[in-house]
Amino acid sequence: MSNPLSAFDLVQLRQRRSVKWAEYGPEVLPVWVAEMDTPLAEPVAAALTAAIGRGDTGYAKPGGLLEAFAGFAERRYGWRADPAGMRLVPDVMTGIVEALGQVTAQGDAVVVNSPGYPPFFYWLERIGREVVRSPGLDLDRLERDFAAGAKAYLLCNPHNPTGRVYTAEQLRAVAGLADRYGVRVVVDEIHAPLTYPGERHVPFATIDAESAARSITLVSASKAWNLAGLKAALAVPGPQARAEVAAIHEEVSEGAGLFGVIASEAAFTQGEPWLDALLTGLDENRRLLARLLAEHVPAVGYEVPQATYLAWLDCRGLGIEGDPAELFLERGEVALSPGPRYGVPGFARFNFATAPERVTEAVLRMAKALTDR
Amino acid sequence: MSNPLSAFDLVQLRQRRSVKWAEYGPEVLPVWVAEMDTPLAEPVAAALTAAIGRGDTGYAKPGGLLEAFAGFAERRYGWRADPAGMRLVPDVMTGIVEALGQVTAQGDAVVVNSPGYPPFFYWLERIGREVVRSPGLDLDRLERDFAAGAKAYLLCNPHNPTGRVYTAEQLRAVAGLADRYGVRVVVDEIHAPLTYPGERHVPFATIDAESAARSITLVSASKAWNLAGLKAALAVPGPQARAEVAAIHEEVSEGAGLFGVIASEAAFTQGEPWLDALLTGLDENRRLLARLLAEHVPAVGYEVPQATYLAWLDCRGLGIEGDPAELFLERGEVALSPGPRYGVPGFARFNFATAPERVTEAVLRMAKALTDR
Repeated sequence: MSNPLSAFDLVQLRQRRSVKWAEYGPEVLPVWVAEMDTPLAEPVAAALTAAIGRGDTGYAKPGGLLEAFAGFAERRYGWRADPAGMRLVPDVMTGIVEALGQVTAQGDAVVVNSPGYPPFFYWLERIGREVVRSPGLDLDRLERDFAAGAKAYLLCNPHNPTGRVYTAEQLRAVAGLADRYGVRVVVDEIHAPLTYPGERHVPFATIDAESAARSITLVSASKAWNLAGLKAALAVPGPQARAEVAAIHEEVSEGAGLFGVIASEAAFTQGEPWLDALLTGLDENRRLLARLLAEHVPAVGYEVPQATYLAWLDCRGLGIEGDPAELFLERGEVALSPGPRYGVPGFARFNFATAPERVTEAVLRMAKALTDR
Repeated sequence: MSNPLSAFDLVQLRQRRSVKWAEYGPEVLPVWVAEMDTPLAEPVAAALTAAIGRGDTGYAKPGGLLEAFAGFAERRYGWRADPAGMRLVPDVMTGIVEALGQVTAQGDAVVVNSPGYPPFFYWLERIGREVVRSPGLDLDRLERDFAAGAKAYLLCNPHNPTGRVYTAEQLRAVAGLADRYGVRVVVDEIHAPLTYPGERHVPFATIDAESAARSITLVSASKAWNLAGLKAALAVPGPQARAEVAAIHEEVSEGAGLFGVIASEAAFTQGEPWLDALLTGLDENRRLLARLLAEHVPAVGYEVPQATYLAWLDCRGLGIEGDPAELFLERGEVALSPGPRYGVPGFARFNFATAPERVTEAVLRMAKALTDR
C-alpha cells in the first residue's frame, strides 16, 4: 500500500471544509489541529459510500461497533474487553465528561497532566470539577496530588501532546498510587492505534490492580483513521466499572453520529492494513522532522514521539517573547498549535500527518519566521 | 421529481444501520422514531460523496452553513436572520441546553409543553432546571405557569408530536405573556421546513415583541432532509440575544459533525425541489392515514397534522390497559412511539414518512393487534 500521507496535493487539500484547512487563508501552511492529510482508508470510504446510497443517515445505533473494537483491541494490544459493557458516546471528550460524572461529584478534584488536551480544562471546569494540573510522568508529584485528596485521575495514554507511550511498569506505578489513595482513573486512549512499531501500547485496563478494574477507558477510531468530524467513540469499563458505564444515559449515546459508527466499525474490522501503511509513513516523518529541526532550527527541543503524529516542540531556547506559535504564524505563515492552550507556554505542537515535502516546507517556514525577526 | 417516500423497498430499508430499522427484527414494521424512509436529496448525496473523496472528515467548521440557512429562512418564511449572530451546535437538543444555560440559572423553572419531545425532560432535569409541564396551546394555563415564576419557555414550533402549526396570532399571544412576565423564550423550529402547503410557518423571532427579540431559536436541516445521524444544527439569536448565543463555547460547536455541516448547507441551498417533492408525498400520506384509520381503527383519534410526518394518535377510546404502542408492537408487529415517553399516556406517535403501501400495512397491523385481543 502506498503512503496515504502523500496521496493529496495542496490544491486538493485546500478544498477541504474541515477546521485544519478552512481556518486560515491559502498563504498559511497548516500543521496544527489533529487532522491528517490522508484519503480515507478504502474500507471506510466504501462503508460510507454505501450508507449514502441507502440514505442511512438517521439516528446512531452501535450495531457491530462494540464487537469490532473488542476484536481490534485483542489483536492489537491483547486486551480482552467485553463488548457487552461498552457504551457508545459522541466523542472521547463527551465520554470523559460522562465517566467523571459517574465516578466523581461536584467540587471533587480531578488530576490532569500538563501539558494536556485543551478541552479537558474547559469541560472539567464546566461540570464543576476542580482541575489539579500535574506535570506528566512525575510519579512523586502525582502521589502528592492524589494524597491531597483528588478523587479521579484523567490519564491520557499514549499522551497528547508529548507522544509518550507509558510502559507497563509506569502504569503499574500509577495504578498502585491510585489504589493506595482510592483515586478513580479515567483513561483517554484515543491515540493508542498510532503507537509506532517497536513501541507497545499497554491499555491501562490490562494492569493487574483494583484501580484498573475500576477504570473507564475512552477509545475511538477518530484519531487513527481521521474521523473526528463523524462523531463516534466508546466508553469501555473495567470489570468493576460496568454499572457506571451502563448508567451513561441513552440520550448521550444518541448524540453520536451514525456515519461515525459505520466508519469506525469498518476501520476497526478492515482498517489495519491502511493503519500499518499510515504508521510507516508517519514513522518516516517523525524521523525526518528530527533531521529538519536539527538542521534548520537547532534550538528547538524535540523528543521523537513514541505514538501519534504530534510533535511537542520546546521553543523556550529560541528567545521568543510571547507565544512561539503566534510568531511562526505571523512571520512564517505556518500554523502550529499554541503551547499555552495545553497549559505550557514556550511550546508549540506540530502535526506531521502530511506529505514529507510539506513537513519540510513547514520547518523551513519556522526557520524563516525566526530569521526575519 | 418522483415521490422520495416510494424509492426504497423493504429489502433495501432493512439493510439500514440507523435506529429506526435496526432496533427491531424483520417481523416488525417500524413507524416510530423520526427518521424517513427516503433516499438522500441528490445535492446532499453529491456533497457527501465529494467529501468522502476529499477525505474531508476532520473537525467541523460552519463554513457557508450560516448564510445557507439565512437564505433558506428568508425565501421560505420571510425571516431575515443575521448569519453573523448564529452559532453551530451538534444538534437542536444540545442547542436548547446551551441556550437555557445562558438565559436561566440552576433551579429555575422552565415551561415545556406536554406532550413534548422526550429528551427535553431528561436534559432539563440533568442541567438542574425544574420542568413545568404545560398542556400545549392552552394560553390560560401558560399564563398561570409564567405567573408562578417560570424563567423560560421552551416552545416547539411547529409542535412535535402534534404537528400543530402556530398562527401569528397565537405566537403574538405567547410573546405578550412572555413580555409581561419577563420569561425568556427558547424555540425549537426543527420541524419548520416540513410545514404543509396551505399552512404558514411563522418563526417566533419574527413576532414584534421584546421576548421575540430576546429569543434563541434552534434550527436544523436534520428533520426535513433526514440527517439526524450527521450532527449539525444552529442557534439563531434574536437581535437582543446575540451576546448569549455568542457565549456558547467553541468547544460546544466543535461537537458538531462536519458531514452534518456539509449536508445541511447543500440541503438549505439546493434542497428545496426535493423538499417540495417530499411534502407532496407526505401530504398524500397524512390524508391517506386519515382514511385508513377511519376505516380500520375508527376509535383512534387523529387530527391531520399541519406540519411534520408525525401523527399523534389518541388511543384512549380503544379500551387498552397500559401503553397502546406496546400492544401494537406485541400483537400487531408494528412499532409506534409510546405516548407515555412524551408525557401523555393513552397516545402513540405514528411516523408516516414512508411509502403509502407501508402506511397502509402499518394501520392494518394496528387493526390486527386490536382484533386479536
